[in-house]
Amino acid sequence: MFQQIKEKSPLIHCITNHVVSNFQANGLLAIGASPIMGEAHEEAAELAALSQAVSLNIGTLHAESLKSMLIAGKKANQLGIPVVLDPVGAGVSKFRIEAVREILGRVDVNVLRCNAGELAAIAGEQWQSKGVDAGEGLLDIKKLAVSTAKKLGLLVAVTGATDIITDGKSVSKIPFGNPMMTSITGTGCLLSSVVAAGLAVSTNNPMKTVEDVFRFYAIVGERASRNAALSGDFQVAFLNQLASLTDREVTQRISLQEETV
Amino acid sequence: MFQQIKEKSPLIHCITNHVVSNFQANGLLAIGASPIMGEAHEEAAELAALSQAVSLNIGTLHAESLKSMLIAGKKANQLGIPVVLDPVGAGVSKFRIEAVREILGRVDVNVLRCNAGELAAIAGEQWQSKGVDAGEGLLDIKKLAVSTAKKLGLLVAVTGATDIITDGKSVSKIPFGNPMMTSITGTGCLLSSVVAAGLAVSTNNPMKTVEDVFRFYAIVGERASRNAALSGDFQVAFLNQLASLTDREVTQRISLQEETV
Amino acid sequence: MFQQIKEKSPLIHCITNHVVSNFQANGLLAIGASPIMGEAHEEAAELAALSQAVSLNIGTLHAESLKSMLIAGKKANQLGIPVVLDPVGAGVSKFRIEAVREILGRVDVNVLRCNAGELAAIAGEQWQSKGVDAGEGLLDIKKLAVSTAKKLGLLVAVTGATDIITDGKSVSKIPFGNPMMTSITGTGCLLSSVVAAGLAVSTNNPMKTVEDVFRFYAIVGERASRNAALSGDFQVAFLNQLASLTDREVTQRISLQEETV
Repeated sequence: MFQQIKEKSPLIHCITNHVVSNFQANGLLAIGASPIMGEAHEEAAELAALSQAVSLNIGTLHAESLKSMLIAGKKANQLGIPVVLDPVGAGVSKFRIEAVREILGRVDVNVLRCNAGELAAIAGEQWQSKGVDAGEGLLDIKKLAVSTAKKLGLLVAVTGATDIITDGKSVSKIPFGNPMMTSITGTGCLLSSVVAAGLAVSTNNPMKTVEDVFRFYAIVGERASRNAALSGDFQVAFLNQLASLTDREVTQRISLQEETV
Repeated sequence: MFQQIKEKSPLIHCITNHVVSNFQANGLLAIGASPIMGEAHEEAAELAALSQAVSLNIGTLHAESLKSMLIAGKKANQLGIPVVLDPVGAGVSKFRIEAVREILGRVDVNVLRCNAGELAAIAGEQWQSKGVDAGEGLLDIKKLAVSTAKKLGLLVAVTGATDIITDGKSVSKIPFGNPMMTSITGTGCLLSSVVAAGLAVSTNNPMKTVEDVFRFYAIVGERASRNAALSGDFQVAFLNQLASLTDREVTQRISLQEETV
Repeated sequence: MFQQIKEKSPLIHCITNHVVSNFQANGLLAIGASPIMGEAHEEAAELAALSQAVSLNIGTLHAESLKSMLIAGKKANQLGIPVVLDPVGAGVSKFRIEAVREILGRVDVNVLRCNAGELAAIAGEQWQSKGVDAGEGLLDIKKLAVSTAKKLGLLVAVTGATDIITDGKSVSKIPFGNPMMTSITGTGCLLSSVVAAGLAVSTNNPMKTVEDVFRFYAIVGERASRNAALSGDFQVAFLNQLASLTDREVTQRISLQEETV
């Protein structure tokens, strides 16, 4: 799939936050995709229509960008262009959770890429984002991901020590989360738009596409962390690894644990 | 204190400019703090209430973010959460100086972290930002810092070749300014939010907290500059040093010159 | 000229997109210039008036920043301050092309710094941005650049494998485009503001100034690519090279192919 991204260089319309926009654009370029990052509502429909996937991220959402996300998302739906939503900090404010609900209500989102706390907020569950025991929380998150995927009719892809991907029927776990991934900002945001790039070139089996992206990304993180134990180096190493990893290396390296609910 | 930041991982609500937001977020993560960077006025009060400190920066201020800063600052005041203001370029426009005056008038700011030109603008003094002689200017800046701290009832922390920190009564000087610190954008902005992170975990003696942060930061800059004489490398090295410096090293390395006004 | 930038440290008012603003600010600092990046319309005229050049970039344009660009541009015109326009993605939406036309109609832009697709959009020509054969397209782009420069009465500077600079009468070609330059976001945007910095210190012969900047930039790219084959490293190496290259090295290294139309 990553070979196809390099060959087709899909245009990814990202409406994203200003904290990670540079890293996200460089990450997409590193894998061979092509980012467009306009966020004015006046051009949202046109940019979505030009693109092969739309990647929405609410990290520094405001009223204008929410409007643009709704327009871009609806245009993408009309044209059959995949839409990925990254509900950054969904639970931190009424504004965010209502925005996420509005987007999910008015746009057919293909993949909801989030962390455990964001998933819990979207599902309306209580969640303590601090001091969470990963082992204990895992089962709940799996169930929550499955029920959310079923209820909303989309793929839910939750990152953590073990990533969980589900379409509401089957569940894949990818146990390669690297703690360095959370040492810099934007690895989750970039992952969401790499998922969008994957869907842009590979639509037959979205669940498998998301799994492949997550495996790839886990290896990128692992490799980057080997040569870069500090956050300045890690950001650089991460982009380098994104630019150099090939499909074959991914296939050789990863075995996926899959199970049925 | 930095050990405490790593342990408590305080949430810092930053309303900041888009030029430095990535660097600022990564810098906060590097020391173990946790940045939230929403800037919509709809969520400003909630984000402030969730946080352990609020860090305001007017580098790319506009009407909406000013509104959010006022809301976040006032909510922080109600809840006893410390507020740091970085009045970037306070003197460059009427819009900025009026915004700074409005924030200072309506929010109890705990620390004003600025440079000499910004301090002069806030104090209503003439200041030539180009060709300033550091030695000659120093006394004036010290006096200005003291009178501003007294007048506004807050800590004033001015960076330069020698940093000056004052509560209007005592003055600390930290003579470790490194010229490489001004070779990249955002070191001052990040410092302001590291001050916020310090205040988030250590509230007993704010003056000492700010001093400790400034000493720490000076050593980070000095160390980073040793292995990185060019600006690309320096940005990376700076984040690396932020991530690796410990309290003990700071204590061992720095002696502070302190004097009474 | 770059020696002069280091000595005079011209203030460059950049109204630019949030994807590249950090890279653009650090790049300007690396060459010794001083960026100001406010984008509120309330301060646009004052910031332009303080500056030695104005650099406009529509990469994440919205209604507010367009308003600011018009105000800053007109103020710069009144005061004889040079204005550079980077019409990022001019052809991707009605909003962008209309904004570009409005800016070009109401502001005397000194240099239009763009790529082939953006030039074609501004000239109202069809252009396929994908699969373009550089050799074949070259002649057309040269003609288009010349006719656009004539029609609009400004310098057109088009980057590509071979860069083209024209005032509508003579044409310079700089054949040093490095493919790594497009592997990261923002090299074009930064180039536009480096052109602004060049014009800020050297106004006698704008065409030669732009050529000198382009040659310098091409060497920066070539040098950076030698030690950095992956995009993470390249971004760092590029800033390092910007900070270290001297005028003398540029003069020694480059011969310019020039021809008359």
